[in-house]
Amino acid sequence: MQFKSLSALREHCQNLPTGNEVAVLAARARQERLTKPPGSLGRLEDLAIWLARWQGTNLPTLDHVDILIFAGSHGITAHGVSAFPPEVTAQMVANFAAGGAAINQLAKTAGASLKVFPLSVDTLTDDFTRGPALATKEFLQQVSLGYDAVDKDADLICLGEMGIGNTTVAAALCLGLYGGAASDWTGRGTGVDDAGLARKNDVITRAVAQNSSALSDPLTLLAALGGREFAAMFGAALACRHYGVPLVIDGFICTAALAPLAALHDDGLAHGLCAHVSAEHAHKDLLKRLGKKTLLDLGMRLGEGSGAALAINILRAALACHKGMATFDEAGVSE
Amino acid sequence: MQFKSLSALREHCQNLPTGNEVAVLAARARQERLTKPPGSLGRLEDLAIWLARWQGTNLPTLDHVDILIFAGSHGITAHGVSAFPPEVTAQMVANFAAGGAAINQLAKTAGASLKVFPLSVDTLTDDFTRGPALATKEFLQQVSLGYDAVDKDADLICLGEMGIGNTTVAAALCLGLYGGAASDWTGRGTGVDDAGLARKNDVITRAVAQNSSALSDPLTLLAALGGREFAAMFGAALACRHYGVPLVIDGFICTAALAPLAALHDDGLAHGLCAHVSAEHAHKDLLKRLGKKTLLDLGMRLGEGSGAALAINILRAALACHKGMATFDEAGVSE
Repeated sequence: MQFKSLSALREHCQNLPTGNEVAVLAARARQERLTKPPGSLGRLEDLAIWLARWQGTNLPTLDHVDILIFAGSHGITAHGVSAFPPEVTAQMVANFAAGGAAINQLAKTAGASLKVFPLSVDTLTDDFTRGPALATKEFLQQVSLGYDAVDKDADLICLGEMGIGNTTVAAALCLGLYGGAASDWTGRGTGVDDAGLARKNDVITRAVAQNSSALSDPLTLLAALGGREFAAMFGAALACRHYGVPLVIDGFICTAALAPLAALHDDGLAHGLCAHVSAEHAHKDLLKRLGKKTLLDLGMRLGEGSGAALAINILRAALACHKGMATFDEAGVSE
Repeated sequence: MQFKSLSALREHCQNLPTGNEVAVLAARARQERLTKPPGSLGRLEDLAIWLARWQGTNLPTLDHVDILIFAGSHGITAHGVSAFPPEVTAQMVANFAAGGAAINQLAKTAGASLKVFPLSVDTLTDDFTRGPALATKEFLQQVSLGYDAVDKDADLICLGEMGIGNTTVAAALCLGLYGGAASDWTGRGTGVDDAGLARKNDVITRAVAQNSSALSDPLTLLAALGGREFAAMFGAALACRHYGVPLVIDGFICTAALAPLAALHDDGLAHGLCAHVSAEHAHKDLLKRLGKKTLLDLGMRLGEGSGAALAINILRAALACHKGMATFDEAGVSE
């Protein structure tokens, strides 16, 4: 999919499939016949039904699971907003390729394929305290790239990211979308000290003031205050919705990148499961704004899709119960 | 292990190994060198270090994981404390054998072996509103059986149970151990109505009054207000501690069965990870009493070790990161 204009992209964001209600009803009826007290598997039951809705079948599958990681570099790293230098983004991309990062191990444990997309990581985006981070043309290119990174035959897509400085980017997006004080949305990221945190607050305050004309449109905002990996994750999430592929959303940065879709369409992230709540405190508030309840709360704050990857085996467990359990009749158990 | 007397068992409960501090230090040092901001894997880091402590090695393994389910039948079911008839216990044991229950699917998903121990399920324990549920001799037999159910070469043991009426038993144990009002500890279990809930409150109030002489000793209390599966889970947890096998504790009933070990030894459940918080509300309070933070909160209330089984793949993920990730030096990533 190549989006040629913001208005074409906007239209694609506003006309979204709503999932398969017939599959939902059939999956729910099946859950009620399985050998367990009704509701006793809690969210595992909801997860099976959610997979049924978005895959459009009573009996979903999880044979083909892709974890997509988009990596980008950010002009605002010049302001000292991260505990790590910007070249770590490219170094970590090399670490992904060599199999040495956390997400490599987590993907293996979850039986998922890992696909890494370095997005011009040697070129910083523009400094958004001075103007938009991405021009419209490049923004649309990155959204299109993310869209095309989704295999329409996948059973599940997990999104993740790598980008030194990108908790500041996510915070700027949230401040632009929801307002409040800068400090509502910033945190220590990979571990900045008090001075670094003050710089983050200052950077995003100036960024939102500088890009105030972008605030009225979520797509323009995402181009101005986002970055390449944000645009690509946004495109991938949109593709999942149109292709009928359930989506697992990682932490604060990933959620922030997709928030504009919820701003463009009330139900825009219904096909997305928020895997975990990040230790980055703003994530909790962002999830609340989006009406999302996470599956996990493990104090993680790594990114790379690490939280999303952990959700895969819980989904596998939910599906195994849904498809493999005996009914009361089959098992001869009294109801 | 055959425990011949309560005092022999008590001594075994009070002389507990404390885990391997050298392995903990080595595992912690390893975590600090891996390619991630320090602490960014949150509880995954703690889990790897916890496995190291109790397996006694810097590089733990999870090749041999057993899920043990103990099933028992309860005399107090005569009081109408469950939404299901007591014969469902034996029916579910048959369902486990046939592979049709939730735990069969969850064990498969987690790569664990399932071992089911029906404990005289056709014979109800005595009604504990009239006296102890189990005589001392049978109590010690069941504790010994649970102890011997643990393979000392296992890398991890998950405990679970099946027993119609056993949320009432767990509530009676908690009331006996911690006091308060009956309603602090009862809930709807598999789904009793208001009248059923009132009967549960009445039953456990009378049970604690009838067995008041047992309240001063946690083991006598467990015999009087427990049941066969409670005694066996207690024995299995004790074996895990002595054998150096980390333990995963399932929901409310399983936690209640092990609470006497924490009453006998301050640190008695340090080798046990509480997998999830049950939808049965008293579980939260019980966990607080024990100082335990769970890994998951998915609104589950099935038992069968279902929550514990879900924790296995999270532990596998933690271990995969611990053992498989590159260090900063190896990966050439700037610190």
